Amino acid sequence: MKKFINKPDDFVRESLEGLAAAHPDLVKVHYDPTFVYRADAPVNGKVAIISGGGSGHEPMHTGFVGMGMLDAACPGEVFTSPTPDQMLEAAKKVDGGAGILYIVKNYSGDIMNFEMATELARTDGIRVLSILIDDDVAVKDSLYTQGRRGVGTTVLAEKICGAAAQQGYDLQRLADLCRRVNLNGRSMGIALTSCTVPAKGTPTFELGHDEMEIGIGIHGEPGRQRLSVKSADEMTEMLALSMIEDSPYSRTMREWDENQGEWVDVELIDPLLEQGDKLLAFVNSMGGTPISELYIVYRKLAEICEKKGLQIVRNLIGPYITSLDMQGCSITLLKLDDEMIQLWDAPVKTTSLRWGV
Amino acid sequence: MKKFINKPDDFVRESLEGLAAAHPDLVKVHYDPTFVYRADAPVNGKVAIISGGGSGHEPMHTGFVGMGMLDAACPGEVFTSPTPDQMLEAAKKVDGGAGILYIVKNYSGDIMNFEMATELARTDGIRVLSILIDDDVAVKDSLYTQGRRGVGTTVLAEKICGAAAQQGYDLQRLADLCRRVNLNGRSMGIALTSCTVPAKGTPTFELGHDEMEIGIGIHGEPGRQRLSVKSADEMTEMLALSMIEDSPYSRTMREWDENQGEWVDVELIDPLLEQGDKLLAFVNSMGGTPISELYIVYRKLAEICEKKGLQIVRNLIGPYITSLDMQGCSITLLKLDDEMIQLWDAPVKTTSLRWGV
Repeated sequence: MKKFINKPDDFVRESLEGLAAAHPDLVKVHYDPTFVYRADAPVNGKVAIISGGGSGHEPMHTGFVGMGMLDAACPGEVFTSPTPDQMLEAAKKVDGGAGILYIVKNYSGDIMNFEMATELARTDGIRVLSILIDDDVAVKDSLYTQGRRGVGTTVLAEKICGAAAQQGYDLQRLADLCRRVNLNGRSMGIALTSCTVPAKGTPTFELGHDEMEIGIGIHGEPGRQRLSVKSADEMTEMLALSMIEDSPYSRTMREWDENQGEWVDVELIDPLLEQGDKLLAFVNSMGGTPISELYIVYRKLAEICEKKGLQIVRNLIGPYITSLDMQGCSITLLKLDDEMIQLWDAPVKTTSLRWGV
Repeated sequence: MKKFINKPDDFVRESLEGLAAAHPDLVKVHYDPTFVYRADAPVNGKVAIISGGGSGHEPMHTGFVGMGMLDAACPGEVFTSPTPDQMLEAAKKVDGGAGILYIVKNYSGDIMNFEMATELARTDGIRVLSILIDDDVAVKDSLYTQGRRGVGTTVLAEKICGAAAQQGYDLQRLADLCRRVNLNGRSMGIALTSCTVPAKGTPTFELGHDEMEIGIGIHGEPGRQRLSVKSADEMTEMLALSMIEDSPYSRTMREWDENQGEWVDVELIDPLLEQGDKLLAFVNSMGGTPISELYIVYRKLAEICEKKGLQIVRNLIGPYITSLDMQGCSITLLKLDDEMIQLWDAPVKTTSLRWGV
């Protein structure tokens, strides 16, 4: 294994120490339990947004802490869920009195631990709602997931909801917005190589020198199929059409009902993409694919969307939700409305996404 | 070779088409000859800054076109110098009447072609000065270079000079600033893997599974030595100390003297780094190294600088001058003065560097 690391056990902590050393004006890091938080937290009267998950997907989530996005991020060990005490202590630190929204990716460990943190926070008198992201159209049920995995839409939900919180949305309205972003977003990825988890030191899976895995998960979970490598245009088409032609996806989600004071099951269905829809197109590197190749993917994606009568009105292109050093890319298409566009354009100041300030 | 490309011959063009499709508000692309330019060019009364070089180092330079940075970028084929007609036509397109500054990396092909473009532009009545970047402390003379190679300081010079041009610096003052940035910047890199040039399809060089190349060039040129892989801290220390303890580097550069109307030889010496100096620390991914590892490098770099009495007051961390998919990183240390700090902080709006707007 060749990486810029010292001891594999110190990978997450040392990377966070570097982040803190580089950006003291933007973020601080609390250790034991570990979380990254806005240097100016808590922001009084603002709903605080917290996300988290296994490390290895940087800049998500730690790179998205700051004005107009996350108030805190809770990084677990590589590809390992953070623990409830991380989320609880983060909530206490950033609570500005208007409640907390947890944005959680749909992986069993994350769900369990965020639910536990939610219960603990409520016991401490903090209002908490949480929204699950499950946008990966590749497979239903996966290695660590019942239902669809949570991937690229998470980044977009964090930006859009972060702006909304900054603009004064209350907790329930923010949760409703986040749910809507999730339902309107869909993603899919392709791996050209495996990633290598530092603690293991060898590739998570084996791919032949001319093979790719379509529908890869961000922890290297198996996708739909393994094929010989295609051209960029063909690969882009496979991803794009899987999303554009995705049939209505419905699932039952467990959400906290504040009025009833209990967990309830809600039935949720993704709206279909239709001619004339406005989209945010997000072309993401899995970590090892350079931006020059992402633009080749974007080129074809724009062509496909145009043919389908879909208008890309915003885009994001770069490494934002990665899988360590994996070569590959994912595409996320988010169906936008005017509210989401305004929130997307709003100022953001984090270590990895920044504009307007 | 596994990449998101179609035909290798179309790599550069299709990547540029993607760039243009994604960011029509920021940049336009002219083909045959090929250059990327500010969508609002020319900016009347402002000195225009043009850079360029072989493709494969994205986002440099094409991703740095926009307000507060470059007016145009001329991409050659992968790792191949652009041609004089690209630079000449770019100059004509973005000339706002106050002259053109070419920022050129020290590679023989680039120098020859930019010099030719300079002569042609002058024949067309356009004032042009050009400044060479030669900041790589790894080796004196290299595969495509006499003297030191031009690497990471280029990114910083483009940002700082771009801000200065935006603030109304005249051509001579801008050239003087750019020369000063170059003399105050030094860089060095390490490769953990080779890159693969699309047209060739196989790795440019071979590195054993436990080997690294110290002092690598951005086209895979040999560095100082090949060693077995060390820890992140040891690798960072090798890079940092090579720069901090670099002995005074002097060289003769050929510059155009506007008063005399002829080329003259100027003797230039890098100032040493001294206790109390303020630095910009730039930790760069060669393309395949994720940001989580860059922060581990930054962590150690900050510690080393502190011990040496050097103050890092600004930083830049991410993939900005890459070598296709190469795993590796480089560090650039730029000795700052107040003028440079103010210019670094000034607003910039490009596809890959953006703040303040």
